[in-house]
Order: sequence, then structure tokens, then C-alpha cells
Amino acid sequence: MSLAESLRRVVQELDEAGGVAIVGMDGIVVEEQKRDPRIDLQTLGAEFSGLFRSAGKLAESVEFGEVSELMTSAERSVVILRRVTAEYFLVLVIHPDGNLGKARFLLRRAGSQLKMEL
Amino acid sequence: MSLAESLRRVVQELDEAGGVAIVGMDGIVVEEQKRDPRIDLQTLGAEFSGLFRSAGKLAESVEFGEVSELMTSAERSVVILRRVTAEYFLVLVIHPDGNLGKARFLLRRAGSQLKMEL
Repeated sequence: MSLAESLRRVVQELDEAGGVAIVGMDGIVVEEQKRDPRIDLQTLGAEFSGLFRSAGKLAESVEFGEVSELMTSAERSVVILRRVTAEYFLVLVIHPDGNLGKARFLLRRAGSQLKMEL
Repeated sequence: MSLAESLRRVVQELDEAGGVAIVGMDGIVVEEQKRDPRIDLQTLGAEFSGLFRSAGKLAESVEFGEVSELMTSAERSVVILRRVTAEYFLVLVIHPDGNLGKARFLLRRAGSQLKMEL
């Protein structure tokens, strides 16, 4: 399955998903799929990569080990980041009323598929 | 209900909870309840308050509004932060195999109770 197909499946199976992207730890988007065209995944990828790196350093410093996921719930959107490899992570933007359990499951599945491709 | 009682209920109703604390946005712990005595909630409160503030600034900058919750899943622990007021947040440490849905529900409930007291 291609990168684009793996991402498309997440958006297709999650009604409330605004968009999903695979992003380098440097913040650069490799591939993206959107339902809501207003969502700027390039900007979100760049901004949230910094937060993901900060969370990673923090978790290591308190001996919690590697961070696999970071979820930020805000008024108008929830952003879930999921580590795929040391170099790449997934970013999913979803409506706050969306099914977060399903979102996390779909991201985990996509992450396992993408790991083979990256 | 006192601050300590509200926190005790969270730990009592959640088997996999290591500890929970109410923390000022400056990182200072106001009250805490632990199941696992090895968990240093003072250090975690101080460290994670910075991450919570960063997430808040980031969400505002991309116009997602106020951050209500931040969840960091690492190998050995999951940390859930929940905003209570502009000055205080809750921090919950839970085992990665724990019931995160229930954890989020209990934190939301405790947050509503604590809001009256703070």
C-alpha cells in the first residue's frame, strides 16, 4: 500500500477527520490527505513537530521512555501525533466531537503499514 | 468536596493510576494523591507545565482555541494533563495498559469539581 493510500484510508474511515499527514521530525510534510481543504497540514506539521520533540525529550528526562503518541485537545480541533519511526510521525486533525478511540486505532494501524514503506 | 478528596476518588476508581496532582501553571503542586510512591509528582508537575504552556501557545497560534487536555503516551507511563482554570491543571500518571477512556472521564469530572474550590 502506498503512503497516500494508507493516509486516504484513515480519512475515509473517520468521518470527523479533517486531514492526516506523514511528517518528518524536521517538520516537513512527506504526504497528506485532507477532507477539510482549509486545514494547513504543512503549518501544523512544522509547528507540532517541535511539540513532539519537546515531549520526547521530557519523557526521556523523567525515564518514561520513548513517546509513541501525543494528543492535544483544543476548542476547535484535536491533534493526534503518532510516532512511526525515529524520523517520521503521523499528524491527524479531527473535530473535538469525533471518535478519538477510533482515531487512535486507525493511526496505529496506518503507522504499522507506513513503517514498512519508510 | 476537598481538593484531596477529589484527587483520591480518581486514584481509587482507576486501578492503573500511579498518581494525580493539581498543579499551578507555574509548575508548583498544590495537592497530590499517589498509589505508586515512586512517582515524583513535584518533578512531573514542573516539567509538564512547560509542555502544557507550549501546547497552549501553539494551539492559539494556529487558531484552534484553548487547550483543554494534553496526553503524552510513552513506553512506561501515560501522562494526561487537564486544564481546570487559567491558573491550574490536573496531571495524572497512568500505566500504558490502563483504561485511558475512563482516565479522561475521571479527570474531566474531577476538573469540574475542583473548579468550584480553586
